[in-house]
Amino acid sequence: MPDPASPLQLTVTSGRLRQARESAARAGVDALLISPGADLRYLTGYHAAPLERLTCLVLPVEGDPFLLVPALEEPAAHASPAAGLDLEIISWQETQDPYAIAVARLPARGTVGIDNRMWAEKAMAFQAALPGGRQVLAGPVLGELRMRKTPKEVQALRQAAAAIDRVHARMAEWLRVGRSEREIGRDIADAIITEGHVQVDFVIVGSGPNSASPHHELSDRVLRAGDSVVVDIGGTTAAGYCSDSTRCYTLGEPPAEYRRLYEVLLRAQRAQTAAVRPGITAEELDAVGRDVISDAGYGPQFVHRTGHGIGLETHEEPYIVAGSARPLEEGMTFSVEPGIYLAGRHGARIEDIVVCTADGGERLNRTSRELAVIAG
Amino acid sequence: MPDPASPLQLTVTSGRLRQARESAARAGVDALLISPGADLRYLTGYHAAPLERLTCLVLPVEGDPFLLVPALEEPAAHASPAAGLDLEIISWQETQDPYAIAVARLPARGTVGIDNRMWAEKAMAFQAALPGGRQVLAGPVLGELRMRKTPKEVQALRQAAAAIDRVHARMAEWLRVGRSEREIGRDIADAIITEGHVQVDFVIVGSGPNSASPHHELSDRVLRAGDSVVVDIGGTTAAGYCSDSTRCYTLGEPPAEYRRLYEVLLRAQRAQTAAVRPGITAEELDAVGRDVISDAGYGPQFVHRTGHGIGLETHEEPYIVAGSARPLEEGMTFSVEPGIYLAGRHGARIEDIVVCTADGGERLNRTSRELAVIAG
Repeated sequence: MPDPASPLQLTVTSGRLRQARESAARAGVDALLISPGADLRYLTGYHAAPLERLTCLVLPVEGDPFLLVPALEEPAAHASPAAGLDLEIISWQETQDPYAIAVARLPARGTVGIDNRMWAEKAMAFQAALPGGRQVLAGPVLGELRMRKTPKEVQALRQAAAAIDRVHARMAEWLRVGRSEREIGRDIADAIITEGHVQVDFVIVGSGPNSASPHHELSDRVLRAGDSVVVDIGGTTAAGYCSDSTRCYTLGEPPAEYRRLYEVLLRAQRAQTAAVRPGITAEELDAVGRDVISDAGYGPQFVHRTGHGIGLETHEEPYIVAGSARPLEEGMTFSVEPGIYLAGRHGARIEDIVVCTADGGERLNRTSRELAVIAG
Repeated sequence: MPDPASPLQLTVTSGRLRQARESAARAGVDALLISPGADLRYLTGYHAAPLERLTCLVLPVEGDPFLLVPALEEPAAHASPAAGLDLEIISWQETQDPYAIAVARLPARGTVGIDNRMWAEKAMAFQAALPGGRQVLAGPVLGELRMRKTPKEVQALRQAAAAIDRVHARMAEWLRVGRSEREIGRDIADAIITEGHVQVDFVIVGSGPNSASPHHELSDRVLRAGDSVVVDIGGTTAAGYCSDSTRCYTLGEPPAEYRRLYEVLLRAQRAQTAAVRPGITAEELDAVGRDVISDAGYGPQFVHRTGHGIGLETHEEPYIVAGSARPLEEGMTFSVEPGIYLAGRHGARIEDIVVCTADGGERLNRTSRELAVIAG
């Protein structure tokens, strides 16, 4: 088990800036403008708060990149890994126009790639500052890099998975008849931190009929004997990588119908993880489990895609969904999480993070996928 | 003291949708497209997670509004306050194009207002779905509503302020020679939750030279005798409203230079809170404290604006900054937080949330603004 007290140190080097610049050039993009978020952290290691004052990496294909930061965040930027890169840090004063400073060295009629999650107010301010320029999304440029994890990144995801597995392993401490989802959720959130994350990203505790709502979070519903409980939880580790795993619990023996449903789901999830290999497309992988579920008559009750990529963000490329002909490659990491939901009654979902290796899929989450019956 | 166990219930009514529609019409905007965030919560009470699948309030000036949600979030939307509004909830399936559904009833060549924090990938997808339309920011339309708090909203901010005041009141439990900023920050984060918030928004513990970095967060620096410590903390309450307060502590008696600096800062902050009244402009209020600080020779060391509005977001309109001729009005709530930073040595900031009333400014934070000397 990785020691949560000594998390992996991931060093961002200037190599990523160079790769991004090359990828931008190939895509016909003259410069990237990257605001705080996972793209900025990936490229520079700088984990900046997403605030209204502009912080932006300006990465032109021709010319020197720089990181523009508000004056009051200059010390934080200099204390970040970005200071160790081949990258000038420039600060702007409270009454200056940072957008004008950011675009001053860019071609007036060029194509700029903005990060996919840049706020509209910033994108529009850039458009006004560079009215002859054309904006495109940086996602296709950066997604190609971020989607394929290095062995060190896979190791960081393995540590995150081990941390969330330790939380699931303790679930019997908290799931009890008479306790509310909200109370249980608070205990889980505390454990997400103590077991090796620095941030709680989400806590879904769907009990009884709420287990049939895939994105239910926490309510004041109190657990009863016989309840099924879907627990889908995740956090971010100090290295910046995310965990995400779903397991199902019941308080005492569930109804026979639930057992049947769960067996179908488990077969589907096992088939899907076994089918992971380089070359299979996202939609083919999605179909593997969907077919199992449809054959058992639950097709319309599997209302979501099979999974999503994971890395510095919980949800990122590649998405495992019908309509995506993207072939999976070595180093891609994503969730395999089929679900079956009988509205108003109960539901189940099983989710592992899987890395695609040359030899097939490696499950990073290692807790048992069997239905966990808790005495309650 | 408000009881944190029984937070204020704020009911969102369809009145806000009506006001937003009227405000849009006055601004020449044909429809608002509002993705998850504070704007959506303000208009509908729906606190939706900001994910890659499109959730969007479509609010046309002519025609019926609807809330578009992914199928797997339909139960969550129906369980939210949005279900009680005069608003249809429409869901989209995983393989449908939600952008096409969202714009189907909008005029092909109209002006749509998108929320200021909509992700670029969504704004661009809307532009592609409605190529003849013109996008503008919804901020000017909605900011006018959100900026002026109702008495109930002020009460919610008062409860948030009392909750963060209870955390500051406990600071002597945690600030100790030999403990690191990070350890202290963990204790503070726990207390932010236990004292009446549902979310920790930020924890800044800047000790010794780090107190001179306004947006420093947490480091492994260990506190020493004589250190100044700037503690700037905030969270979100169950009602959705934010707290934000900064106080300065020293471990034992600080250097004489720090005492002098702090006295100047305290005079400035007192003068600014005393100057709050309807009609004073944001830049006039900014100048009140800046003049005190400049007269004492610290002008260049006050590197940021005086403050920011606060409500469903920690930073929102009105910003109290040079260059803003906006007159303050009754019901506006904002921080008053001058600071003085001597790079590499030490710094200080004092921050209260203030509401502008007919009679002047009311401070919502009530802990002492004097420098708190802790035995350490």
